[in-house]
Amino acid sequence: MASASSAASLRHLLRRPLRPTLLRPPLLRPTRRLLCASSSSSSSTLTHGGDSSTSTSSDGALGVVDLNPPRGTRDFPPEEMRLRTWLFDNFREVSRTMAFEEVDFPVLESEALFIRKAGEEITQQLYNFEDKGGRRVVLRPEITPSLARLVIKQGKSVSLPLKWFTIGQCWRYERMTRGRRREHYQWNMDIFGMPKVRAEAELIQAIVLLFERLGITSSDVGIRLSSRKVLQAVLNMYSIPEHLFTQVCVIVDKLGKLSREEIEKELISTGLSSEAVQGIIEVLSLKSLSKLEEVLGSDVEAVADLKKLFSFAEQYGYADWICFDASVVRGLAYYTGVVFEAFDREGELRAICGGGRYDRLLSTFGSEDVPACGFGFGDAVIVELLKEKGLLPDLARQIDDIVFPLDEELEGPASSVASSLRKKGRSVDLVEDKRLKWVFKHAERINASRLILVGKSEWERGMVRVKILSTREEFEVKAGELE
Amino acid sequence: MASASSAASLRHLLRRPLRPTLLRPPLLRPTRRLLCASSSSSSSTLTHGGDSSTSTSSDGALGVVDLNPPRGTRDFPPEEMRLRTWLFDNFREVSRTMAFEEVDFPVLESEALFIRKAGEEITQQLYNFEDKGGRRVVLRPEITPSLARLVIKQGKSVSLPLKWFTIGQCWRYERMTRGRRREHYQWNMDIFGMPKVRAEAELIQAIVLLFERLGITSSDVGIRLSSRKVLQAVLNMYSIPEHLFTQVCVIVDKLGKLSREEIEKELISTGLSSEAVQGIIEVLSLKSLSKLEEVLGSDVEAVADLKKLFSFAEQYGYADWICFDASVVRGLAYYTGVVFEAFDREGELRAICGGGRYDRLLSTFGSEDVPACGFGFGDAVIVELLKEKGLLPDLARQIDDIVFPLDEELEGPASSVASSLRKKGRSVDLVEDKRLKWVFKHAERINASRLILVGKSEWERGMVRVKILSTREEFEVKAGELE
Repeated sequence: MASASSAASLRHLLRRPLRPTLLRPPLLRPTRRLLCASSSSSSSTLTHGGDSSTSTSSDGALGVVDLNPPRGTRDFPPEEMRLRTWLFDNFREVSRTMAFEEVDFPVLESEALFIRKAGEEITQQLYNFEDKGGRRVVLRPEITPSLARLVIKQGKSVSLPLKWFTIGQCWRYERMTRGRRREHYQWNMDIFGMPKVRAEAELIQAIVLLFERLGITSSDVGIRLSSRKVLQAVLNMYSIPEHLFTQVCVIVDKLGKLSREEIEKELISTGLSSEAVQGIIEVLSLKSLSKLEEVLGSDVEAVADLKKLFSFAEQYGYADWICFDASVVRGLAYYTGVVFEAFDREGELRAICGGGRYDRLLSTFGSEDVPACGFGFGDAVIVELLKEKGLLPDLARQIDDIVFPLDEELEGPASSVASSLRKKGRSVDLVEDKRLKWVFKHAERINASRLILVGKSEWERGMVRVKILSTREEFEVKAGELE
Repeated sequence: MASASSAASLRHLLRRPLRPTLLRPPLLRPTRRLLCASSSSSSSTLTHGGDSSTSTSSDGALGVVDLNPPRGTRDFPPEEMRLRTWLFDNFREVSRTMAFEEVDFPVLESEALFIRKAGEEITQQLYNFEDKGGRRVVLRPEITPSLARLVIKQGKSVSLPLKWFTIGQCWRYERMTRGRRREHYQWNMDIFGMPKVRAEAELIQAIVLLFERLGITSSDVGIRLSSRKVLQAVLNMYSIPEHLFTQVCVIVDKLGKLSREEIEKELISTGLSSEAVQGIIEVLSLKSLSKLEEVLGSDVEAVADLKKLFSFAEQYGYADWICFDASVVRGLAYYTGVVFEAFDREGELRAICGGGRYDRLLSTFGSEDVPACGFGFGDAVIVELLKEKGLLPDLARQIDDIVFPLDEELEGPASSVASSLRKKGRSVDLVEDKRLKWVFKHAERINASRLILVGKSEWERGMVRVKILSTREEFEVKAGELE
């Protein structure tokens, strides 16, 4: 069907005179001004190149366009996109093995969904505005409220428990001082309708499965966990009124960021006695579950939940990934039970992901409550960690075939060769108006498997020339029999 | 390894007393008010259920939350999401066979990128606003300007031609009178650096490949094409100044929507003679390329381009999909050459996709021009068409295994069984606190392949019971040997 031939015939091809490129595509030769803007990360603007602007003025030539995306946002050129796709594919694959269903929501939501009074950072940095119809809308800062909204909306048509995941972009608006971005993507997994810590155990397995898929081990990363019921128990001990619970949680979550004195001040300003404040801070410093049991007693729900979760961890086989740490509270107002976060053991990065139980969120939206729990896993810290550990995969471009007509008059035959290969599912780059030398370099650059040369003398015999690029093997094959 | 056994033993299992469900998850029983809002598509709001609101007031209980996403936007519950994923996978698969690379951009862009003076519908419906930093930003109405921006920004680091695709959400703000949505997703394929109609021929192959993958034939759908150079030639015939070109294009694109009289009036108001207006409208009514050649002469670029494109269509094998139609102009200001759109042959839907050549867009951003051409393919009309033709696939949920402990004390063993199956890549739904009858119904609903029952007597022997749900075959297998 195809006969292998010597490298000589390809050299012969290389010697063939190539037709002069009549309509060479103009090279992308940006003006110097343009290159400046391109290499700088600042939001410098461009003025018109000047040459072709006047002739196209009715197209609305703008004169000044910023080449960067809006401050704090990213473009994804092909190499960044391949990385993102790889990461998201891993999110999806883990979600599939955990039997979660994918859902999605508009990136634009009603502001009302995110307005909470507990002083969280996330609600202070809302990317909100008024639309032309006078509605208060927001580029969502997180996805959980949308999930909860949809669960309520679906109502009785769904059977519990629900296991949903989503991958979406989240936004925040803050002054861009520390090079932090205004958007990131977040993988969310949420379970509605499971009141027991089985739900937390499942979510933590998902996180561990993800790490394992990425090549991360339990000596790189750990998952700290605690329960807000710990704080609840302390508040009960000091007879602190229920309505202060969320506020206290949001304040003590800042323990790593603010000084102990500042935290104490904030707590006291809510009306807590300094005795209660000391009690809270002492309990939050506990790193051992048995110590916690000593302090709170074993009949406290927090202790029972956490013990159960650690026993699950043994059964699932991820006990070496998790540790109890009473200081974990998480910053979101709506958590009510177990909370957790993954951290790099070298302690250099922010939390990799975080989550917890939020059994009382739905009633804040006017619905009956449904026990719920979930996590958000961003695309930023994990990529930093993978880079640091040398675990980023080689995601080069990969193409099956390059089809290249050696003569302009062969562009028709090249079209049908490319077309029929594509119909067979092969990825085919059809190249024209280039020199053969360029084509070989291009083939290397895009990791093509084969080069298919459509030459005049071969085509007259119904043949094309195939070069396997990895082995340099070369042969002729009937065009109709190309697979 | 595993021994098949009779159905009797499953009946035995069914007779086993199930432990009383101690912590039954509360059913999702929304209040009547809530159900009203859920079933109506209007933006009705909810007031608080009342029962648990006071106890969680510090969580920021809102009292009033709309269960619908913002007006004109969509949620994607699992079944809608499966459809979207299926469609996007087809977009991606075609893009891969065409050797295009995926890219992405922020959904939020600078308004400047979209401000054009030609009176296009798209720029009159910008979803724009001022951010907190006083910047004019916009939820992008289309993706081409972002593509062009990134091409310029990449500058010399990329080698031409570039073949990029992207799938992203686009927004517009208009009064919601006709039930039209404010957002849709769009598949874009663009080629930068190919001045010849080869680029158009490649893009049209991509569109045809997509239709074929979806089961759509050339008797369902056609692709109308023309070139803006046709209008250019007519304008030249009447010595109409160059700067009116874009404006004329945008006006005559409304030919199907406005009456001929209205179009004529608009054209005359730009300063055209009524003779020129008649000439334009006559040429736009042509449906035959040979007739066009008669009118404009064969040395006009438009004619040469279109003839070439039709000859390519023969070679690619999609000639029966395309037809010349001089009335195709497309509404975007920046097109300069060949333009095309796919339409349903029954004539009931809007254009399925549209595209064209835009060789002068980059200079409006202050860069040197690069020949470019591309199309946008929305997610709305194609789904309508597929529905109409009965071509929507059956996208039921599909799970490999359900693991179900028959006793609460077996939740540990069930965890390790589920965990080890997941590590082998199987999708596993771990079910608890349900009756076996519910589990069987659930298995049917989610198309599970196997049911794995963890029972006490079996587990004591290191075994689990497996039921193949398609064949009703049932057997015991060693837990460690489960694949």
